[in-house]
Amino acid sequence: MIGRLNHVAIAVGNVAQASRIYKESLGAEVSPPSDQPDHGVRVVFVTLDNTKIELLEPLGAASPLANFLAKNPSGGVHHVCYEVDDILAARDHLKARGDRVLGDGEPKIGAHGKQVLFLHPKDFCGTLIELEEK
Amino acid sequence: MIGRLNHVAIAVGNVAQASRIYKESLGAEVSPPSDQPDHGVRVVFVTLDNTKIELLEPLGAASPLANFLAKNPSGGVHHVCYEVDDILAARDHLKARGDRVLGDGEPKIGAHGKQVLFLHPKDFCGTLIELEEK
Repeated sequence: MIGRLNHVAIAVGNVAQASRIYKESLGAEVSPPSDQPDHGVRVVFVTLDNTKIELLEPLGAASPLANFLAKNPSGGVHHVCYEVDDILAARDHLKARGDRVLGDGEPKIGAHGKQVLFLHPKDFCGTLIELEEK
Repeated sequence: MIGRLNHVAIAVGNVAQASRIYKESLGAEVSPPSDQPDHGVRVVFVTLDNTKIELLEPLGAASPLANFLAKNPSGGVHHVCYEVDDILAARDHLKARGDRVLGDGEPKIGAHGKQVLFLHPKDFCGTLIELEEK
């Protein structure tokens, strides 16, 4: 079912500072920051040879990252995103097994303009998983 | 400097159970478990189209995962591993910038039989980073 690792999302307090770490210390190719107010994040993309890292700073008071950063003030891996061919088939397969899909179970349009769902960390080795339709 | 994302390592309490989650719920290709007593882990490799996930269970009392799982009993992302062409050049570049390399700064032979170093999470967005020479 899952195909490529689309990205690893790392929550950070300050995306400009995190961007410098990835660019200057780790020598990676880093995009300029872009604001995604609909998703409550300011994001920088780190392009690796086979996938990407997304550095996410909370944007606005209702950001989904606020709680995570309150618990992890240095930042940390927030979620991993796996690609699937058919997100509705993936959801139905997971629900039939009793695995928890977050929210109302209906895919939303994610930050890349594609359909996404998030899965409950407690059912997936303590890891928040995003599924994105290819 | 950093090239491919070699793997994402997820610490789990029970690798057999985690393996079933990745195989049966997420439909991924999963290896049999293998013990790596020198590294204090039992590992299962999840093969994705562009990288891999390593599911790591502590092996032995001195496992480097024990503290992590005590703090995160459901498991969670333990580290991410980036490939570099020249690990000594990478280390020297990082140290010259004041970024902390863990241990004595000398590369060790990692779980894949290649030279590795770990970087201090506080200097890298709260993320434990492994560098592996290609």
